[in-house]
Amino acid sequence: MCRWLAYQGAPIFLADLVSRPGHSLIAQSRRCAEAKVDMNGDGFGLGWYGECPEPGLYRDVHPAWSDENLLSLTEQIRSRQFFAHVRASTGTATSRANCHPFRYRNWLFMHNGQIGGYERIRRKVEALIDDRVYPSRSGTTDSEAIFLSVMSRNPEEDPLAAVAGVLDSIFALMREAGIEEPLRFTAALADGDRLLAIRMASDGNAPSLYWRRCEKGLSVVSEPLDQTREGWRAVPAGHALVFGGDGDPVFKSLGSIGASRAA
Amino acid sequence: MCRWLAYQGAPIFLADLVSRPGHSLIAQSRRCAEAKVDMNGDGFGLGWYGECPEPGLYRDVHPAWSDENLLSLTEQIRSRQFFAHVRASTGTATSRANCHPFRYRNWLFMHNGQIGGYERIRRKVEALIDDRVYPSRSGTTDSEAIFLSVMSRNPEEDPLAAVAGVLDSIFALMREAGIEEPLRFTAALADGDRLLAIRMASDGNAPSLYWRRCEKGLSVVSEPLDQTREGWRAVPAGHALVFGGDGDPVFKSLGSIGASRAA
Amino acid sequence: MCRWLAYQGAPIFLADLVSRPGHSLIAQSRRCAEAKVDMNGDGFGLGWYGECPEPGLYRDVHPAWSDENLLSLTEQIRSRQFFAHVRASTGTATSRANCHPFRYRNWLFMHNGQIGGYERIRRKVEALIDDRVYPSRSGTTDSEAIFLSVMSRNPEEDPLAAVAGVLDSIFALMREAGIEEPLRFTAALADGDRLLAIRMASDGNAPSLYWRRCEKGLSVVSEPLDQTREGWRAVPAGHALVFGGDGDPVFKSLGSIGASRAA
Amino acid sequence: MCRWLAYQGAPIFLADLVSRPGHSLIAQSRRCAEAKVDMNGDGFGLGWYGECPEPGLYRDVHPAWSDENLLSLTEQIRSRQFFAHVRASTGTATSRANCHPFRYRNWLFMHNGQIGGYERIRRKVEALIDDRVYPSRSGTTDSEAIFLSVMSRNPEEDPLAAVAGVLDSIFALMREAGIEEPLRFTAALADGDRLLAIRMASDGNAPSLYWRRCEKGLSVVSEPLDQTREGWRAVPAGHALVFGGDGDPVFKSLGSIGASRAA
Repeated sequence: MCRWLAYQGAPIFLADLVSRPGHSLIAQSRRCAEAKVDMNGDGFGLGWYGECPEPGLYRDVHPAWSDENLLSLTEQIRSRQFFAHVRASTGTATSRANCHPFRYRNWLFMHNGQIGGYERIRRKVEALIDDRVYPSRSGTTDSEAIFLSVMSRNPEEDPLAAVAGVLDSIFALMREAGIEEPLRFTAALADGDRLLAIRMASDGNAPSLYWRRCEKGLSVVSEPLDQTREGWRAVPAGHALVFGGDGDPVFKSLGSIGASRAA
Repeated sequence: MCRWLAYQGAPIFLADLVSRPGHSLIAQSRRCAEAKVDMNGDGFGLGWYGECPEPGLYRDVHPAWSDENLLSLTEQIRSRQFFAHVRASTGTATSRANCHPFRYRNWLFMHNGQIGGYERIRRKVEALIDDRVYPSRSGTTDSEAIFLSVMSRNPEEDPLAAVAGVLDSIFALMREAGIEEPLRFTAALADGDRLLAIRMASDGNAPSLYWRRCEKGLSVVSEPLDQTREGWRAVPAGHALVFGGDGDPVFKSLGSIGASRAA
Repeated sequence: MCRWLAYQGAPIFLADLVSRPGHSLIAQSRRCAEAKVDMNGDGFGLGWYGECPEPGLYRDVHPAWSDENLLSLTEQIRSRQFFAHVRASTGTATSRANCHPFRYRNWLFMHNGQIGGYERIRRKVEALIDDRVYPSRSGTTDSEAIFLSVMSRNPEEDPLAAVAGVLDSIFALMREAGIEEPLRFTAALADGDRLLAIRMASDGNAPSLYWRRCEKGLSVVSEPLDQTREGWRAVPAGHALVFGGDGDPVFKSLGSIGASRAA
Repeated sequence: MCRWLAYQGAPIFLADLVSRPGHSLIAQSRRCAEAKVDMNGDGFGLGWYGECPEPGLYRDVHPAWSDENLLSLTEQIRSRQFFAHVRASTGTATSRANCHPFRYRNWLFMHNGQIGGYERIRRKVEALIDDRVYPSRSGTTDSEAIFLSVMSRNPEEDPLAAVAGVLDSIFALMREAGIEEPLRFTAALADGDRLLAIRMASDGNAPSLYWRRCEKGLSVVSEPLDQTREGWRAVPAGHALVFGGDGDPVFKSLGSIGASRAA
């Protein structure tokens, strides 16, 4: 399982969350506490919104803990909305194109989880991607396929509905193929203004997800960034955290997605 | 355009063709003579048959000219049938999964050329790949898609017919999509026993391809490996060179492939 | 020979010089016009001053032309003083530690050129590095050794004198060893406020170096960034360009360095 | 701490030790049992003797567990004497030049351990390297410096004496500098015919080292390659295992090295 963090608020240096805290994301790349695998050494990525509508992207296949470029970038770049991700592959190759976050126009996406039995329905999941969007398919992960499927549903108006629609379609494909393994999905989506963080699983074992509102802004993380864990609250399973930049986030139930399956 | 070489015969060190000759493939990665681009720095690969039915594979994203691993391997490995390739990307990313040769079970394939307008028919080309073979699709190149389509047609009995069938299907897809750009295809296919090298183009401009029979075996190359060019003969455009390990290669016309188009 | 560019002035996006112009530095990595080798594919680097005293650094071993991270960073990062470099190795390995620019505290340095017969005097050149600075020696290039030797001479007060002193010492080492090959040195040094660009050679063949003052600031480059070459003037051989951020740069003769040798 | 294995005997596929056993070296790169750090993701390397006097070398900066090239090579290459190493950096950069094994002419060397306070005596340790050998210094590790110092002492006649001499010199440098941290040294040295494996530490905490004689040959490993640990015996601390290809290895005490220090 991967580890990730998302931030939105007053511009801060990426280092404040990615590299400096005691249990920072880079520290978690070496050893994480709440996941099945205890290391995330199969690549990493940063995505951040700066002065352009399109976000910046820095992804590489090295372990995060030994990449001097990553460290230097987090110390130089200040952003009002950014994603960071360290990857533990669930089978697909370690390549830049398979590293998170993924970018499409002004959108960023990252994911921790897995589509059960993906290899058996991969082509059908890829068929959810619109012809217009398909040229952007540059890797082979289920995560990128989900993201490009969401991008195929004109997410501008209601991004959560687009995500929910794609998840519904994937559950249908899994059922059709008789797949027993669960779908687990803990993901973040942003467009420079809005932040969505979704936590769900078809089998009741949604990967961990926490959030904290501090003076400067909102952080959403796979694992608390400090050992005390003070102030971190779990995002409820089967829910989406929706944040527009002000006040507290709103939580929306994913309700009927996956029908009779436990969220 | 990429540069490649294939060898079959008595076992020789890969270095004898890949790194030592004056105009060796590694030298061609820096500067080639007969291609549109004058450098092939977007990755490289070796594939070779040793003691196992499945060939060895070594591919990386660095330029061939600066990879010490590549040099060391060519000096250590001796093989009776091997492929080597240096890549100049025609647009797809520089990743290991996009480097040639490609391997599927006991088969190796490499390619120099391009499907015109590939982005517009990519998904349809990928649909030529059988469900059984599709999990092996690990990159995004047209070359890998062609290879896996060939593998989907049970190539064991008549590999040339499998290649010709796939090319025919691709020409049909191109016509259907109204694509004007040419298909250019100079490729090699091997299974440990047999070697096929194909040279064709839909517009009369097939990439260069040469062969030479020496005492030890047969070499097929994008460009002669020495400046004198002594003994190298062109593979005729629109033809396949077929070699079984003994004597001289046989040349077969690709005939009607691509219908009225010039080969 | 490598290619580089340095900028100082009003903050601009790195892309304005590194990736967008017709003959941008990234374009020069593929094909340059005025150098002995026609490609610079052995790594690249960016160094830039942002909000911290210490500059940011992004270096990697891939060719610049195929690195999506590099492209993204140049489009996001805006800086008042930055360096960019594409490398053609003169023999040392392609590793991040051998890529330019080099950083020491708040200083940046990059270089195009070569110490003649370096392998024969390498250890003596390294002995010019102070014990205090030596732990920062992380690669094997002559360029890094020169830089750390300059840093060993307390460059804060008079950086040009520090560079000149090191070059003098190296000339002495070369003479002592009876080295006939020339020293060629076209380099830039910055500390966030000041920019130095030096052009010299012991044999009268100093690598090319140009400068242009535009509305926003000063650019110094190995080669003009556009084909028209309008407004670019050569830095005279045997001279240093010194710039403090305002008005026109000042040119200082390197005079007696290397004694009787032609500059 | 790193993990390594060495083999000498009848030619076997590298995969038999490197990738296939339950607790193979590649498995140990993800999780090892007896070391301070529980992961070795900072690069890896293979060195093997084939048909040439000079051994082959394949080293890269990725974690061993995700490198398809490594897997393919171990399945193809058969050797009578080979080394494999997975690295956990003790501070120096992750670069190919810092990966083990190191090669000099027909010699191979690899190491698990550390010179205490190395940064403070690095230049003096490097001064143990002969001028003739110094051009081969291509990285910055203490391990490579030790190896090149051994190579500077004409190791052909008595390789163990050369190693012991270098260790003695390093202990002297440490004492002189008042270094309190220990020297820990578990290393292997080979020349195609002979295999040396040394286990020692100045503080009584020598890193683990095991050996096993099987039908085909001798294996020496940081950790047993199977969970049962059957047949593996510890190399006694303060001793060198010396093997010439036949019968059982001989163990020699390192005796007075480091003088009054516990071995």
